[in-house]
Amino acid sequence: MLSGELQTVGTGSAQRSRVVIIGGGFGGMFAARRLRHTRVDVVLLDRETSHLFQPLLYQCATGLLSEGQISTPLRTMQHRQRNTKVLLGAATGVDPASRTVTAARADGTTFSLPYDYLIVAVGMRQSYFGHEEFASFAPGMKTLEDALTIRRRIYSAFEMAETIANPEERAGWLTFAITGAGPTGVELAGQIRDLATLTIAREFRTIDPREARVLLFDGQDAPLSSFGRKLSSRAARQLIKLGVELHMGTRVVDVDGGGLTATDGDGIAVRYPARTVIWTAGVEAVAFVRTLAEALDVEQDRTGRIAVNPDLTAPGHDNVWIIGDIMERDGLPGVAEVAMQGGMHAAGEIHRRIQGQSREPEVFRYRDLGSAAYISRFHALVKVGPLKLSGLVGWVFWAVIHLSFLVGIRNRLSAVTTWLFALSRGRRMERAFPQRDL
Amino acid sequence: MLSGELQTVGTGSAQRSRVVIIGGGFGGMFAARRLRHTRVDVVLLDRETSHLFQPLLYQCATGLLSEGQISTPLRTMQHRQRNTKVLLGAATGVDPASRTVTAARADGTTFSLPYDYLIVAVGMRQSYFGHEEFASFAPGMKTLEDALTIRRRIYSAFEMAETIANPEERAGWLTFAITGAGPTGVELAGQIRDLATLTIAREFRTIDPREARVLLFDGQDAPLSSFGRKLSSRAARQLIKLGVELHMGTRVVDVDGGGLTATDGDGIAVRYPARTVIWTAGVEAVAFVRTLAEALDVEQDRTGRIAVNPDLTAPGHDNVWIIGDIMERDGLPGVAEVAMQGGMHAAGEIHRRIQGQSREPEVFRYRDLGSAAYISRFHALVKVGPLKLSGLVGWVFWAVIHLSFLVGIRNRLSAVTTWLFALSRGRRMERAFPQRDL
Repeated sequence: MLSGELQTVGTGSAQRSRVVIIGGGFGGMFAARRLRHTRVDVVLLDRETSHLFQPLLYQCATGLLSEGQISTPLRTMQHRQRNTKVLLGAATGVDPASRTVTAARADGTTFSLPYDYLIVAVGMRQSYFGHEEFASFAPGMKTLEDALTIRRRIYSAFEMAETIANPEERAGWLTFAITGAGPTGVELAGQIRDLATLTIAREFRTIDPREARVLLFDGQDAPLSSFGRKLSSRAARQLIKLGVELHMGTRVVDVDGGGLTATDGDGIAVRYPARTVIWTAGVEAVAFVRTLAEALDVEQDRTGRIAVNPDLTAPGHDNVWIIGDIMERDGLPGVAEVAMQGGMHAAGEIHRRIQGQSREPEVFRYRDLGSAAYISRFHALVKVGPLKLSGLVGWVFWAVIHLSFLVGIRNRLSAVTTWLFALSRGRRMERAFPQRDL
Repeated sequence: MLSGELQTVGTGSAQRSRVVIIGGGFGGMFAARRLRHTRVDVVLLDRETSHLFQPLLYQCATGLLSEGQISTPLRTMQHRQRNTKVLLGAATGVDPASRTVTAARADGTTFSLPYDYLIVAVGMRQSYFGHEEFASFAPGMKTLEDALTIRRRIYSAFEMAETIANPEERAGWLTFAITGAGPTGVELAGQIRDLATLTIAREFRTIDPREARVLLFDGQDAPLSSFGRKLSSRAARQLIKLGVELHMGTRVVDVDGGGLTATDGDGIAVRYPARTVIWTAGVEAVAFVRTLAEALDVEQDRTGRIAVNPDLTAPGHDNVWIIGDIMERDGLPGVAEVAMQGGMHAAGEIHRRIQGQSREPEVFRYRDLGSAAYISRFHALVKVGPLKLSGLVGWVFWAVIHLSFLVGIRNRLSAVTTWLFALSRGRRMERAFPQRDL
């Protein structure tokens, strides 16, 4: 170890319990905030300096919002919370015996963090279901890097088409294939049609961007199947109206630089030429979760998640909570709301113990506050309990929900301003990108 | 050639003369605009999709402005100008005999563009004076990639320092060395001190970001020497007041991952540990200019520039203009203003010939409208003829000048809003960055 270990978190607080939170996403952020008035020292460890508001990543990828508009530095978020220290590092190990987390800096050197209580909220990454070779052809949609890569590929594809005379080749550049018709896939599909038919519609001389084809592939029978049959079929109608071509009930079996191959229900394989392929089909736990599972001697499911106790602790470890997308509990979905409530629950449990309350661990009860997906300008789906909204009403709800969770008043103001500019004529202010593949 | 050539630019205009402009920077952009009402078909060829407002690149690199706030898509800028076609491609060759430009697409395939008149405005890239090995340690400041790399390195350096106990190592991460004390170097130095003492001053628990050292190296006796002795010494005083350490009259002879070595006037070499080194020391013509010079059979100077005729045409080629940073004429500096006026001059000459006016080529006369450099909040230098401004008055002039040239009304509005937010408390909205080295 090059640089010596960090001895204790904070100074002059040997009597205070130490909480380490790994991951500054929705779960870790809400856990840290819930501990604001608890007499503990908190370390929030993350691989990135900023909390990413992932639900709007597709708007960054399509040139509507900047990276800064969908991110807030963890430090800025936490700097008034005096009992919390933010550290940049990738968790590399956990030792439950010595109660220590090991983390790596950007240069590969490591440091360690002692803990009394540990909350793990490291999240998922894109999964190619064992076909890692697809990744270079079909970027995922999980990180800012992904968003800038996709931004570059989308706008560059139209540029390529503009200079190419061969009709078949040109058609390949004007075809965008998206795997996965969950919210991310649907939102991307809608945005690409929106930008082709509005933003850049009149900017080319040779091609007509409005002819761009967007193909959406999914194994389910309909897009947004988690929203239930009624909203799902409304989404399908709206997408078709937008010009998105739905290939439901298909399985993508091959991807390369020229397109993808998908099989239908009868197993018949069809080749779809498309120079831009975007992969939103599946997720799996990040690599650290395997290390964690081994250290804690617990099982992982097929996607790498860890089944937790009813109070969200890891089996056999009453001071380690596993929350957010990487926890498996009652089939709860990997959405922001589950992570937030899980984070608050874990932090609440720690708070209770610090207060000396000795009753039984509290069972985590998830309150489903609903879900929402954006389809296109003025069209969104919202499901809140029995309430099902779509079209303009859904869109207004969607905007309110997303603004209320977007961190920081300036991010909100700037998103609203940008949306108002964009809604009128489809203008997008963030079409610039670094030239190289990220 | 995979994709067939583009036959003619535009359609049904066999009688119209064809103008090819290579480069969509200030020179190329002003040339294209000047040809708006001329009966020619214009192709504007660029390696990037957006015009970059380079004078504010340092504000993008330090997390103040987004990429979109300092860029405008060339297509958006030109799409109402019906005689102009924008194409994405890197110029790879010129054949003056057949009057053809060859360009490469992103995938390496090529296409060709016939021309009757050619304007070359491809600009300069960072030069390491033959020490290309410095580049990986010390990024330059010419492209959006550079800006995002520098943004990542600056903010990550503070993060590294926060987790490191060893005082010497920590000091290395808190030291930022900048080579070159021209406007870019001075502006970056000021911004780094601004962000350390304002933006992030209270966000850390272990380090005090205000202790960050910024070292500025230059071979000249004073920073901003091109502004003349009086403004130059005011700049030096202001930089010192900000906490920037000036190392004037030095030559940087080595750079590695741990810092740099510089020799002073007596040739004594001193090692300066600094984990972040940024290179703004020199520029050279991009690689294409060598190809061009060989094709036209003209000479390049030490930095790769081509000496041009008084009307800015290349020697021996009365239908080829070389403008902007890559032209050598009367020692004119490589600044935006020279490029803009050069672009308008070349386009004006083409216009005159199309009109059938047969008088002698007009000599290019540069009107120096002055220069400006930002030092820190409320401090900028402006030199307009005999007028020399600094401090707050200079800053107001600086803002007006930059806003008037920032392309597009929305970019202006959004820059003003951002500056107002930032000025009050040093807030920076664009601190997010992709994690990988670009």
